[in-house]
Amino acid sequence: MRYIVEISYIASDKFSGWQVQKNANTYQAECEKVFEKVLGEKVSLVASGRTDAGVSAVKQVAHFDCMVKLPLNFVGRCNSLLPDEIKILSARLANADFHARFSAKRKTYIYNFYVSNIKIPYYDVFATQVKGNFDLNIAQQNLKQLLGEHNFKCFCASGSGVDDYVRKIYNVSLTQNGCLFTFKITGNGFLYNMVRIIVGTLIDISSGKNLQSVKDIISSEDRTKAGKTAPAKGLTLLNVEYD
Amino acid sequence: MRYIVEISYIASDKFSGWQVQKNANTYQAECEKVFEKVLGEKVSLVASGRTDAGVSAVKQVAHFDCMVKLPLNFVGRCNSLLPDEIKILSARLANADFHARFSAKRKTYIYNFYVSNIKIPYYDVFATQVKGNFDLNIAQQNLKQLLGEHNFKCFCASGSGVDDYVRKIYNVSLTQNGCLFTFKITGNGFLYNMVRIIVGTLIDISSGKNLQSVKDIISSEDRTKAGKTAPAKGLTLLNVEYD
Repeated sequence: MRYIVEISYIASDKFSGWQVQKNANTYQAECEKVFEKVLGEKVSLVASGRTDAGVSAVKQVAHFDCMVKLPLNFVGRCNSLLPDEIKILSARLANADFHARFSAKRKTYIYNFYVSNIKIPYYDVFATQVKGNFDLNIAQQNLKQLLGEHNFKCFCASGSGVDDYVRKIYNVSLTQNGCLFTFKITGNGFLYNMVRIIVGTLIDISSGKNLQSVKDIISSEDRTKAGKTAPAKGLTLLNVEYD
Repeated sequence: MRYIVEISYIASDKFSGWQVQKNANTYQAECEKVFEKVLGEKVSLVASGRTDAGVSAVKQVAHFDCMVKLPLNFVGRCNSLLPDEIKILSARLANADFHARFSAKRKTYIYNFYVSNIKIPYYDVFATQVKGNFDLNIAQQNLKQLLGEHNFKCFCASGSGVDDYVRKIYNVSLTQNGCLFTFKITGNGFLYNMVRIIVGTLIDISSGKNLQSVKDIISSEDRTKAGKTAPAKGLTLLNVEYD
């Protein structure tokens, strides 16, 4: 039987991202260990995508196959065994052809950053510090150029191993609250480090670094034309949607 | 000479709020200790108001008097000595009649909460968990009734020691992002625990508890007609404004 689970986690020094690694603690490994305890059966989780170390998830989605029916209060029993950094939001039976990665239709990320030359302790927990200037108008103009279907090779970390760089962006916004900025983006999928490179590029453009517009950078299909990769801190997977 | 300083801090188990207390570490005590080291003179900070344990500040404002001129790079030297939880944003000469508390014209607080029966680790760092239902429409209708000048005795913790309960609210908003809600309020001043009692009342009203409307609760001038005091976690002093 195939099951779908929604998993919520916060970035922490204790975890090296989602995906199982040798000699490192990961959210996937922690969940699989606890699921095995509760189910009495070893399972493998397949997520909608991996998240890097330093990235949080309000809602990550994964599937797994197992022989047994989920026991009563599976969610509660898992949560009592999981560390504070990870909680299961829900678990239910899925169609046999459901696949957390390939069936995903829309993913939404947010990226928080604050513009200040001095560290602001409260913001620094969930946002990346940006020193210098930041012109919201310039950012807003460039933001819109992300919308629609494009070849986003320019925003893909090298060595990602994919060969189809076309993705579709449905929504993008940047909201300001004092010196705190929240970037939000929804697309049908994202390339490796794509959100972080987009944010780094917007910050570079909007702080007066002499870059081309986002439109021209996209057309170039050249990673070296885009800005730096913004730090993992600040990035959160907000939602994964299916039909 | 009188100086004005802007101070930023994050709630932490290590600090028991702003105000100096015997046998407890506080933001005020930590700042005074570091200022004395840098100035070579003992100073007393007077803040725009105290904040309780569990409350963060993006910008708290305080004044102090001292005999000496601020040394070059006073801010940088203080910040290198202060713990990660506290940073000085600025320091400058003030008029002799400036008073961080009595000269304050507007204060803005935010309160973050998320509605979920299961803990969401990422939100739980800066927001209070609310279980059950929450009807945003009901909250929005009641929110507006806070605007303007009112006697807010109903939203003041007992034993506060004040006798003038009249305050003026200039702006109030509640924004939703998925299950995360951010309440923001600006007024000419706030009574003891006022923001937390307002938020607790809005949560109670909007989750179907049988309370009167905010308008009727205000008219009652009766603390027992209002809802519970929301937890300190979630509350942040965002800004203090002066003429």
